[in-house]
Amino acid sequence: MNERPLVLLLSGPNLQLLGEREPEIYGRERLDDHVAAAASAAAGLGLTLEHVQSDSEAELVAAIHEARGRCAAIVVNPGAFTHYAWAIHDALAAFAGPIVELHLSNPQRRESWRHTSVVAPVATATIAGLGGAGYRLAIEAVTVLLEGDAVSR
Amino acid sequence: MNERPLVLLLSGPNLQLLGEREPEIYGRERLDDHVAAAASAAAGLGLTLEHVQSDSEAELVAAIHEARGRCAAIVVNPGAFTHYAWAIHDALAAFAGPIVELHLSNPQRRESWRHTSVVAPVATATIAGLGGAGYRLAIEAVTVLLEGDAVSR
Amino acid sequence: MNERPLVLLLSGPNLQLLGEREPEIYGRERLDDHVAAAASAAAGLGLTLEHVQSDSEAELVAAIHEARGRCAAIVVNPGAFTHYAWAIHDALAAFAGPIVELHLSNPQRRESWRHTSVVAPVATATIAGLGGAGYRLAIEAVTVLLEGDAVSR
Amino acid sequence: MNERPLVLLLSGPNLQLLGEREPEIYGRERLDDHVAAAASAAAGLGLTLEHVQSDSEAELVAAIHEARGRCAAIVVNPGAFTHYAWAIHDALAAFAGPIVELHLSNPQRRESWRHTSVVAPVATATIAGLGGAGYRLAIEAVTVLLEGDAVSR
Amino acid sequence: MNERPLVLLLSGPNLQLLGEREPEIYGRERLDDHVAAAASAAAGLGLTLEHVQSDSEAELVAAIHEARGRCAAIVVNPGAFTHYAWAIHDALAAFAGPIVELHLSNPQRRESWRHTSVVAPVATATIAGLGGAGYRLAIEAVTVLLEGDAVSR
Amino acid sequence: MNERPLVLLLSGPNLQLLGEREPEIYGRERLDDHVAAAASAAAGLGLTLEHVQSDSEAELVAAIHEARGRCAAIVVNPGAFTHYAWAIHDALAAFAGPIVELHLSNPQRRESWRHTSVVAPVATATIAGLGGAGYRLAIEAVTVLLEGDAVSR
Amino acid sequence: MNERPLVLLLSGPNLQLLGEREPEIYGRERLDDHVAAAASAAAGLGLTLEHVQSDSEAELVAAIHEARGRCAAIVVNPGAFTHYAWAIHDALAAFAGPIVELHLSNPQRRESWRHTSVVAPVATATIAGLGGAGYRLAIEAVTVLLEGDAVSR
Amino acid sequence: MNERPLVLLLSGPNLQLLGEREPEIYGRERLDDHVAAAASAAAGLGLTLEHVQSDSEAELVAAIHEARGRCAAIVVNPGAFTHYAWAIHDALAAFAGPIVELHLSNPQRRESWRHTSVVAPVATATIAGLGGAGYRLAIEAVTVLLEGDAVSR
Amino acid sequence: MNERPLVLLLSGPNLQLLGEREPEIYGRERLDDHVAAAASAAAGLGLTLEHVQSDSEAELVAAIHEARGRCAAIVVNPGAFTHYAWAIHDALAAFAGPIVELHLSNPQRRESWRHTSVVAPVATATIAGLGGAGYRLAIEAVTVLLEGDAVSR
Amino acid sequence: MNERPLVLLLSGPNLQLLGEREPEIYGRERLDDHVAAAASAAAGLGLTLEHVQSDSEAELVAAIHEARGRCAAIVVNPGAFTHYAWAIHDALAAFAGPIVELHLSNPQRRESWRHTSVVAPVATATIAGLGGAGYRLAIEAVTVLLEGDAVSR
Amino acid sequence: MNERPLVLLLSGPNLQLLGEREPEIYGRERLDDHVAAAASAAAGLGLTLEHVQSDSEAELVAAIHEARGRCAAIVVNPGAFTHYAWAIHDALAAFAGPIVELHLSNPQRRESWRHTSVVAPVATATIAGLGGAGYRLAIEAVTVLLEGDAVSR
Amino acid sequence: MNERPLVLLLSGPNLQLLGEREPEIYGRERLDDHVAAAASAAAGLGLTLEHVQSDSEAELVAAIHEARGRCAAIVVNPGAFTHYAWAIHDALAAFAGPIVELHLSNPQRRESWRHTSVVAPVATATIAGLGGAGYRLAIEAVTVLLEGDAVSR
Repeated sequence: MNERPLVLLLSGPNLQLLGEREPEIYGRERLDDHVAAAASAAAGLGLTLEHVQSDSEAELVAAIHEARGRCAAIVVNPGAFTHYAWAIHDALAAFAGPIVELHLSNPQRRESWRHTSVVAPVATATIAGLGGAGYRLAIEAVTVLLEGDAVSR
Repeated sequence: MNERPLVLLLSGPNLQLLGEREPEIYGRERLDDHVAAAASAAAGLGLTLEHVQSDSEAELVAAIHEARGRCAAIVVNPGAFTHYAWAIHDALAAFAGPIVELHLSNPQRRESWRHTSVVAPVATATIAGLGGAGYRLAIEAVTVLLEGDAVSR
Repeated sequence: MNERPLVLLLSGPNLQLLGEREPEIYGRERLDDHVAAAASAAAGLGLTLEHVQSDSEAELVAAIHEARGRCAAIVVNPGAFTHYAWAIHDALAAFAGPIVELHLSNPQRRESWRHTSVVAPVATATIAGLGGAGYRLAIEAVTVLLEGDAVSR
Repeated sequence: MNERPLVLLLSGPNLQLLGEREPEIYGRERLDDHVAAAASAAAGLGLTLEHVQSDSEAELVAAIHEARGRCAAIVVNPGAFTHYAWAIHDALAAFAGPIVELHLSNPQRRESWRHTSVVAPVATATIAGLGGAGYRLAIEAVTVLLEGDAVSR
Repeated sequence: MNERPLVLLLSGPNLQLLGEREPEIYGRERLDDHVAAAASAAAGLGLTLEHVQSDSEAELVAAIHEARGRCAAIVVNPGAFTHYAWAIHDALAAFAGPIVELHLSNPQRRESWRHTSVVAPVATATIAGLGGAGYRLAIEAVTVLLEGDAVSR
Repeated sequence: MNERPLVLLLSGPNLQLLGEREPEIYGRERLDDHVAAAASAAAGLGLTLEHVQSDSEAELVAAIHEARGRCAAIVVNPGAFTHYAWAIHDALAAFAGPIVELHLSNPQRRESWRHTSVVAPVATATIAGLGGAGYRLAIEAVTVLLEGDAVSR
Repeated sequence: MNERPLVLLLSGPNLQLLGEREPEIYGRERLDDHVAAAASAAAGLGLTLEHVQSDSEAELVAAIHEARGRCAAIVVNPGAFTHYAWAIHDALAAFAGPIVELHLSNPQRRESWRHTSVVAPVATATIAGLGGAGYRLAIEAVTVLLEGDAVSR
Repeated sequence: MNERPLVLLLSGPNLQLLGEREPEIYGRERLDDHVAAAASAAAGLGLTLEHVQSDSEAELVAAIHEARGRCAAIVVNPGAFTHYAWAIHDALAAFAGPIVELHLSNPQRRESWRHTSVVAPVATATIAGLGGAGYRLAIEAVTVLLEGDAVSR
Repeated sequence: MNERPLVLLLSGPNLQLLGEREPEIYGRERLDDHVAAAASAAAGLGLTLEHVQSDSEAELVAAIHEARGRCAAIVVNPGAFTHYAWAIHDALAAFAGPIVELHLSNPQRRESWRHTSVVAPVATATIAGLGGAGYRLAIEAVTVLLEGDAVSR
Repeated sequence: MNERPLVLLLSGPNLQLLGEREPEIYGRERLDDHVAAAASAAAGLGLTLEHVQSDSEAELVAAIHEARGRCAAIVVNPGAFTHYAWAIHDALAAFAGPIVELHLSNPQRRESWRHTSVVAPVATATIAGLGGAGYRLAIEAVTVLLEGDAVSR
Repeated sequence: MNERPLVLLLSGPNLQLLGEREPEIYGRERLDDHVAAAASAAAGLGLTLEHVQSDSEAELVAAIHEARGRCAAIVVNPGAFTHYAWAIHDALAAFAGPIVELHLSNPQRRESWRHTSVVAPVATATIAGLGGAGYRLAIEAVTVLLEGDAVSR
Repeated sequence: MNERPLVLLLSGPNLQLLGEREPEIYGRERLDDHVAAAASAAAGLGLTLEHVQSDSEAELVAAIHEARGRCAAIVVNPGAFTHYAWAIHDALAAFAGPIVELHLSNPQRRESWRHTSVVAPVATATIAGLGGAGYRLAIEAVTVLLEGDAVSR
């Protein structure tokens, strides 16, 4: 019987291309590698990871809805949706647990349109620029946040 | 004989007030607690931590200069200097190793003047919103970056 | 045989959470309650209501396409799509009848990114800030607009 | 003896020209027609309507002051004052009951300077684009708001 | 025979609500209390105070015109007119004596539209954020300015 | 034994040039004159004045830190730091007592970059444009604020 | 019996100070002199001049309303209202004849807030920078415009 | 056996309405007509055309993914997605061949929000304003680009 | 012997098309007609008119240079150069006499890029929107300005 | 006898350097090559090509004037004039036939000042990013536009 | 036989007025004086100076073209063209040698439209504010740059 | 006895890294080399050079204060302080002699935040982009300025 807290990992559009697309920016590992690393880290910390990847804003919104009351935390790498998909913002705003915004690269160093995040206003924490290793650290961050060891704003 | 790589932890102005100042934003732990946690994490990962806290932009610039060729990485929480102290940007730009920008709260959720970071253009990675636990994760991030396990931009 | 004019009621992303999500902003009634009230008001005014809720911009666009030549008017609460989904704007621009933009809260009183509406340039009328009761008034507004009792711009 | 709640209807500058001025935008009915329709709707809903039209910001401010503690709600079509008359904003902010902002046309579809409303930050609800019929609906909106059937923000 | 210099105190729209309107911002004292305190301070300093309160920009302009050549100084709390009433700016520009801009609260801490003052370009001095006590200090400021003890710009 | 409340007077960069630098803007009195006047006014009102002048942002931050729990109020003329030194903002935000922002000239009348104050968001009150006399009035303002006779925002 | 076409000359706030206020900008002649010159020019061209000066936006709006259907053209020097009084814009938009915007100085050479005119979008022609002589030329302009000798936009 | 290079033609939301929607802007031919003309032109030039129309950003992203390594070039008319759908930008950025951005009308002549293209930063070439004939020319452009006869930026 | 003051009339690019190009904006008279009217008006007022039309910024600059010390005033309709040709601004700034900026239509009513004039900062007066009749009035304006009957700024 | 429709090809400043200047952006072919290709394409389509290259805005304006009533269409590559030469805009606005804006590179991918086109508001169509081959396609585009096979806006 | 490297000195519009126009800004020496000083300095440093002054953007572009492959460096004082003449930017970008931007006054201290330089992005160095002496220093700068003694960006 | 005029050379933060930091931008020579070259040039021109390098804004301000009345001119390379350190602006504004702003690279060609200089409004002259050679030329510039051979603005 699974009684371990669930953590939802969300991956936005184009992330299934990881390892192929612009490896000088996003690294050479594949999304599956990152998810496996996150799942492993989660297991080691007493958490169970669920992963949803979608190019569809509607499917990501639906996954967030389904996490309400069922998952303890969300880690979200919204890909390009980071910069305009306010429907994801509104869905996340209706989620009660901690939310970690995750990026492989550091968006603040790239094109200016990547400097704006519609997720940031509802993200408890942000981790960016660590490539695939960010997935493991985001899981650690979730643990921290679930323990209430972080600031509230 | 100490042969372990050095990591410089920089704390900007007002951070010595941690635990006293606006605890609803910055948490109730003191800076010493965070530094101790970071040092402990560093030791566990085979790193030696140095810490410099200063309210003076010049002293922070000097500390970065002294780290050149001596330290392997820098973790920097520039406090309010994040938003205007371009001299720190230029000093960091002359440092060859990875740089992790660290914030206790998530600046993107706060006043609009906190949304701009002069450090971001030279920061390899960013960790924000995890309170004191961010210090430990920043050290882990350094390990990742020193292992070349992260993306280059 | 149904010969009464059809009115399409469109609900955008996250609106199925009504009654659960941020009730201090959106009220405690559920979307079904609002739709039922609108349908009842429509019936009382000799109209038949169709309702489509979707988190998918594509499905909302499709619903608007299907309403062309079949429905007499559209009432649309685009949720977060209000602020960026120009494809919905273009679909509505190809609809010949009156269009009522409906919001439960008053977006002009909230975050600045909610002050821009991509629907407004093609909306005949706007009703906002009346919570669930707005649905009934929007149906009344449709009646007015179908009777040509309103201004043309 | 009149014990029915009072509703103040405010009409800003140039509205006395309705029916004459730019009828393709504002319709061909006169302000008196609209006020009569609003009064009739109010009576039908157990409310008594007072109407003040003025081209003077000071008179509109005075009318709002006099409504304090005496009227249950305000419906205001500020005309061009919508876009700059912050003194009206401040007067309305000192009124305790619900406030409905009313426009004959939909300002969001017109010149860009009409897109800003200084009344919106204190308006509970907004109705726009329904021509003269908006007056009747605004009265209905007042009933809704007085019954507490609407959202608070 | 009154030979003491006259000081004109101008109060803009809504200030007659002081003590009633938003006391958490503007304090609980009434405008009459503030004027009485100012008059008393003036008398103690050898000045005679005149007070004009109006919700009408035209009346405030007229009061400034009448002060030309007759009053030695003006203290003006323009209320909401601070932010757009350029006619008051032009009237004050034609007044030869010192002008003190007075606000009960500190407008720079409030909504961004309150950060702009059309009076500031012609105000010799500014006093803000001291509630009713600001009236007394503004009178002292007038004394200072009339004695030429202040900077010219 | 000194039991009178302490007031910290802070003077930012270049203020030691007063009386020499641009006297047509800042007046001909020296900073010492102003401080003496302020100290005298403080003594007359039962307060003890401390004065710190520094061209160093770090020293001003330190002076504010040292005032925490020891001084009852701060009067600060940040000089050019007014316009960019957010570290001073953050230090002042951690001070519990009232804060009076003081300027010899009226910055709103000068170059546009002087129109922005990073101190304003944490300043209880502002006094500007009164030259050296502003120091005495700022002390009076402190008395008012310590007596709770002012508005809270 | 007066059968000559009427021309309404409108003067906005502070213009009654002409000859006294800032003569280096506005010249030394008085408004009466300008009006007399305009009336004389009008008479010579077969027109009758009416003049209304007011510091009140409402009175200027009313004067424009009264000119509808009665006057052939309007010459308006709105003073400071030029830059924000949209109610005057809306009133002028409802006037069918030609409208000449008149300024004594050239607003485009002065402060940037004087570069925006809310009257311009409805002004057939503009004459600025000619001091009192502008009044005579504005009357000539009216003659031209009434003769249809000018372009339509 | 088909050995001819594949060209993917992508049509964004609402384009299936071509011929019906706003024919004064988009022309009277249907999308099928345009696709047939493009396919015919492609065949004549030794290319095989594939066409995907979708109102769904996710489906367009998927179609681009599937074209990777399989198609030689992409012609894309993103419809309203042109102006905000950065996920399409990111998908196209991961496609190695030439990309032609195609519009029936000239977006630079229309509403200002149509002046921004999120596709332009990754589009090798742009063809706009030629109506249905643009499809044929876009195919010719593909031939040019595949022959390396064009500039690289 | 010609001893009458010279006035230079400058016409910018495309003005030779007058009467042909967009007559609904610029009228149906030709430039020659306007120049003849201006010359006639000049003669009647004791002035001699010179006219230079050029599509070349350099030729207009040269004409202004040649007018220095020889002509008493300049009337300039810079056409499209109004909005960007700062070299003409600098040339006019070196001319000592009065300068009248002339436009056939009212640029403030047209596209927003026509609202900026690089000539305005050096134009004594502006006449716009009077079509060809503006030429005659501009000559009258020159007379006024040469007589010193206008304001200096 | 030449009865074939004339097409004017205009080349702006610096284009005579093609093949020499920045070949990585503009390609290695020379302008003569492009013009020859365009002329050949024109001949094949029953059109006669005229070519004017000039670094002078005035000469380009003159060439456009001379094309009025004589040429059927214009293809224009304005070079750097694209971004500020409004006189060319006005000249093209007075040309009755179709206008094709042509660029060798894709300006939307380059420096931000190249994103604005003063020609776009009067260009029927745009072709960019195809290097020298764009000349041939622009001629084809002209044929399409002359046949009325394109949209009107 | 002249084998010394050629340096092209370019002077933009209005510079032939030097010594006459606004001497308080540009000094009292004439352009000829400056050119002679530059030529003398050049000769002393083993360089030969060519000088072209023109009010025509086209002639300046042509002079730059002719310098390609023939001159070793360019010194350019573009006058007002500094701020908008992108054709000069493009011509300079095609010049292979060092480019020194020269101004008599310091444009950053003057009107805001003089703060933007279209030449700066292609200027190796800038010298401003030294009046006529700047010409000599610019020649020295050329020597430095030709010796490779300067930074590359 | 030293009677030669003193020149203060100021070097801002990070300049002590010259020769090490980003040599592709700043060159390979060290600051000491540049200072020695400047001192040598100064000696040759009858001047004595003092040099202060500091990463501290306060120390630079103090050095400027100490130069008042003692030094004849200042050459300042403020490093990153160029872009935000208004306290240095204010200190320089209180210095009576000429001020030369010096940069090794050309800031106008680099990141946009380097385009703004807070020193420019008080800098008599600017020299940029000449690497180490700029130091020598700046000394020559000082000589020019001390001889009054330059323009005053």
